[in-house]
Amino acid sequence: MRQGDAGSVDVLLFDVFGTVVDWRASLQRWFQRFGRERHVEADWIGLVDDWRSAYEGSMARVRRGERSYVTLDVLHRESLDALLPRYGLGGVSESDRRQMVRAWRWLDPWPDALAGLPRLKRKYVTGTLSNGGLGLLVDMAKFAGLPWDVVFSADLFRRYKPDAAIYLGAAELLARPASALMLVAAHNYDLAAARSHGYRTAFVARPTEYGPRQKKDFGPEDAWDFTADSLEKLADKMGA
Amino acid sequence: MRQGDAGSVDVLLFDVFGTVVDWRASLQRWFQRFGRERHVEADWIGLVDDWRSAYEGSMARVRRGERSYVTLDVLHRESLDALLPRYGLGGVSESDRRQMVRAWRWLDPWPDALAGLPRLKRKYVTGTLSNGGLGLLVDMAKFAGLPWDVVFSADLFRRYKPDAAIYLGAAELLARPASALMLVAAHNYDLAAARSHGYRTAFVARPTEYGPRQKKDFGPEDAWDFTADSLEKLADKMGA
Repeated sequence: MRQGDAGSVDVLLFDVFGTVVDWRASLQRWFQRFGRERHVEADWIGLVDDWRSAYEGSMARVRRGERSYVTLDVLHRESLDALLPRYGLGGVSESDRRQMVRAWRWLDPWPDALAGLPRLKRKYVTGTLSNGGLGLLVDMAKFAGLPWDVVFSADLFRRYKPDAAIYLGAAELLARPASALMLVAAHNYDLAAARSHGYRTAFVARPTEYGPRQKKDFGPEDAWDFTADSLEKLADKMGA
Repeated sequence: MRQGDAGSVDVLLFDVFGTVVDWRASLQRWFQRFGRERHVEADWIGLVDDWRSAYEGSMARVRRGERSYVTLDVLHRESLDALLPRYGLGGVSESDRRQMVRAWRWLDPWPDALAGLPRLKRKYVTGTLSNGGLGLLVDMAKFAGLPWDVVFSADLFRRYKPDAAIYLGAAELLARPASALMLVAAHNYDLAAARSHGYRTAFVARPTEYGPRQKKDFGPEDAWDFTADSLEKLADKMGA
């Protein structure tokens, strides 16, 4: 199959954090507003970046089977509780901590996502394939206006990507061969796993996702079926 | 809580077959067209009604644990194979049998559903809670223009309604108490099960769902939170 050819694909599944929504800028704005309203000063940008970094480690322990599955909300809460004292915020209340974890639901899409997704939805079944929980993803879609046809989340399978159970489970539930599915993601590791299970692949470059800490995923690291720097450009390339 | 009060509900989950789509008229049309195109005459109406009747028995065996979970597509195929010879249709090809099973995806909504659902979707998270498979429900939504925010299907839980696992599982995945969920259904048994697990309830009367064979569900058999004879009327009553 040549690059730029969607073959027999009729379903596009999207990674969400980083690929569809700009979690970093959204959370920075949320915390800065929180600080203004509470008259609290802190290094909110550092807190957001450290919080996201902690997620990789905590999820890896679940992936390796060192602890049983817990949702992303639980992982976020644990790492937040560990981080707040280091930022001089150990006194943040229980109810504010809950709101901080819920802030991962109120993320803004990248500017091209709201334009590109409805176009792709007209031609393809469009859904998520995310390590977020289903409740989080549904609430985020409602908040941000993301028009998913179907929501696949880590908690449906009690596994985190890149566990095979997620890619294979979504195909089985959709009653389709994996070759009818394409993963759209800003992360090469995710596309590599999807391809190894028979998915088609589309890389969307998000070189500012992690801000100054970004170390990888500036471009495609393999010959993915499609490469674009926005979901509108992907829609162009896929004739949607 | 008084009738006509949605309380803390922010999610509406819909039974699909009978409540949202008119499976009987849709399948009658599909089989009559099949007959015309193939120049085959048969009692298509009887076949459709017997096919649906067989589903109750075959699903009950799974519910009672007499066989392990198989999808609705599998149950439909088994009962179709048993029925066709009785209608003089034993010679129908393998590929036509597959198309007949797939015809359960191409069902038309009741006329009020396409008008009512988008209104309800603006105010509530709207999704399915159906004994259909996820692939079937996603394909049907795409075909019929049903604007679900989330799709809950029997195969996510490997159980059929009214198994508790479906009602409780959907609430857990949505990260909400059951009291935030309302089931909308044309079948009293389904609402009774949902209420027993803490859901709010809305009955939508579909007195012609089963045609002349309809024996029950002509009206509400309990004091459900809402009762309406269309999804537009339900939207009116819920202020959507």
